[in-house]
Amino acid sequence: MDKGSFRTIDSVGRGELIKELMEHSSFSRDEVIQGYGDDCAVLENRGEGIYQLLSSESFMEGVDYDLTYVPLHHLGYKVATAAVSDIYAMNGTPQVVLVNLAVPNKISVDMLKEIYRGIGAAGKDYEFQIAGGDLTASHKTLGISISCRGEVPGNNVIYREGAQPGDAICVTGDLGAAAAGLRILMRENKFWREQEQQQAFQPDLSDYEYVVRRQLVPVARKDFIEQLTDLNLSPSSMIDLTQGLVSELKHLTGASEVGAYFYQAALPISLDTRSVADEMKEDVDKYALYGGEDYELMFTLPEQKVEKLADEFSDFTVIGKITDSSEGIRMQKAEGDVAVFDGREE
Amino acid sequence: MDKGSFRTIDSVGRGELIKELMEHSSFSRDEVIQGYGDDCAVLENRGEGIYQLLSSESFMEGVDYDLTYVPLHHLGYKVATAAVSDIYAMNGTPQVVLVNLAVPNKISVDMLKEIYRGIGAAGKDYEFQIAGGDLTASHKTLGISISCRGEVPGNNVIYREGAQPGDAICVTGDLGAAAAGLRILMRENKFWREQEQQQAFQPDLSDYEYVVRRQLVPVARKDFIEQLTDLNLSPSSMIDLTQGLVSELKHLTGASEVGAYFYQAALPISLDTRSVADEMKEDVDKYALYGGEDYELMFTLPEQKVEKLADEFSDFTVIGKITDSSEGIRMQKAEGDVAVFDGREE
Repeated sequence: MDKGSFRTIDSVGRGELIKELMEHSSFSRDEVIQGYGDDCAVLENRGEGIYQLLSSESFMEGVDYDLTYVPLHHLGYKVATAAVSDIYAMNGTPQVVLVNLAVPNKISVDMLKEIYRGIGAAGKDYEFQIAGGDLTASHKTLGISISCRGEVPGNNVIYREGAQPGDAICVTGDLGAAAAGLRILMRENKFWREQEQQQAFQPDLSDYEYVVRRQLVPVARKDFIEQLTDLNLSPSSMIDLTQGLVSELKHLTGASEVGAYFYQAALPISLDTRSVADEMKEDVDKYALYGGEDYELMFTLPEQKVEKLADEFSDFTVIGKITDSSEGIRMQKAEGDVAVFDGREE
Repeated sequence: MDKGSFRTIDSVGRGELIKELMEHSSFSRDEVIQGYGDDCAVLENRGEGIYQLLSSESFMEGVDYDLTYVPLHHLGYKVATAAVSDIYAMNGTPQVVLVNLAVPNKISVDMLKEIYRGIGAAGKDYEFQIAGGDLTASHKTLGISISCRGEVPGNNVIYREGAQPGDAICVTGDLGAAAAGLRILMRENKFWREQEQQQAFQPDLSDYEYVVRRQLVPVARKDFIEQLTDLNLSPSSMIDLTQGLVSELKHLTGASEVGAYFYQAALPISLDTRSVADEMKEDVDKYALYGGEDYELMFTLPEQKVEKLADEFSDFTVIGKITDSSEGIRMQKAEGDVAVFDGREE
């Protein structure tokens, strides 16, 4: 970034800044009566039988991301993905987001605009409008928090609760890629920090493109939700994979008051993810079981509906089945013995 | 706080922690189908002609508050007040809030619960439900962000836009008290820091009770909004006083494309606020004009409606009138000359 173009936030003024930032809200929805520019965003109602959905995600610098290797527009896209992924996990449609930023001195107007550019790009992909938010100062670290409002017809909403013994446990896409991407970025960052002459962080990541992209610019599964609508299919339960498979299985089985039995060999893991684990001399299943931020969807379906889905949609895998609550969460390992995961959570 | 009772967040676990925190959500609303415990909060729709309102406020430690002198439950109450105040400023009714917290290691579970206790108390006063949110870690400072969803009948919504030349400019309550309270707290804090033996921060603030309370536990003007409904009165424009009178006048006149003429002598300032300014050897009008965080409402009304309001509601003051856009924002000083405030904002 050209140093001459570094404008501080103070020099621009809050009103002008917000106006500039909002230029990146490129998708407009008819129901937005008033977006930014007043105390609240105002939305028209859509009639009876529709539920509103609200979700919220916070990302703090130094905890959830490192600005050394996370481009700001990717950061904006990713936080938006996290917020809309929660809406999709209820079988809903995102509509508007509010963006709260806590901004330290080191962040310029142009850098903030980069964040909004990422959110705006996500808005195009997921068809939401940025409808407002708040800006505050921060001493050292950048904080970003996105709330999303969506809606879903009341008889289509899918909760974590509802899985029945015998239901197939399915996941979209593949698992552990975001964790693999993070390992690569952390290694390159460490390498960069150890150089005496620190150049701009421009490592050659072309060999790791897939996993790095999964870490930096994850995509929420809008396509799957649309497929469900097209097929008039309703999973008995659903959750998005924010924290890793085992953790989310605990959430889902806890809410549904059931157990789960799944197969290590069935875990969908990409070749790229496997090759990172090999290079790192680590167990790739750990990436799949405990690595977070894949933003895939996990859902449960009665057996006969699995075939109906598979006829039209291929990007999902059956990894096991729902069992009785007393069985807990168990995984049959590739070698044949069974691992038990303790401590269900609601 | 007893050191033996200091539980770290890690030791409790996220699921249990959220459950504990949610115990402070003491007000329940019928329309909440699903509060916490799933990916989203789910709300029933209320039929046609109702607008939903969403607002969001972020407070960062060290910028918006100092934990040395801000009790955590007051902090929770205040951030909630800020979020619902935006809903009232549109003539709406708050319904649910989402709470996002970025939490450093120094904050214990009990401390977080204190924050939620404050939010819960605000929930009782303002009749909203805490419907979810997010928790993330933070390196050093506590961040708190509250999003509020409310609603308003579509034909009752009041914007910043709509003020007409000739309308009276009115404010509820009094101005500058929160700024006066902040001055006192900062002085006491400085005094405390300069002591060699730092005891717990327990200064005697009894002489300053009113202004300190206005700073620490401001109250949003639900009572005024209810009064408007009872009287079937609709201001031509409205805004809440978050950033100080002059700043919010710029917002309101900018959105309405009008000017404003008001009287220094008419500014409603409490005796307690005046006595703090005297003690500090400062100009009390600066507190009223530029001091933020009063969370009073500023609104405009045609002259004949002012009387109707005054017959039933006494806690407001006419400070001036709306003028033509070309007049800008002017204040007639007590001595007779006129001050001009430049730079309208939208």
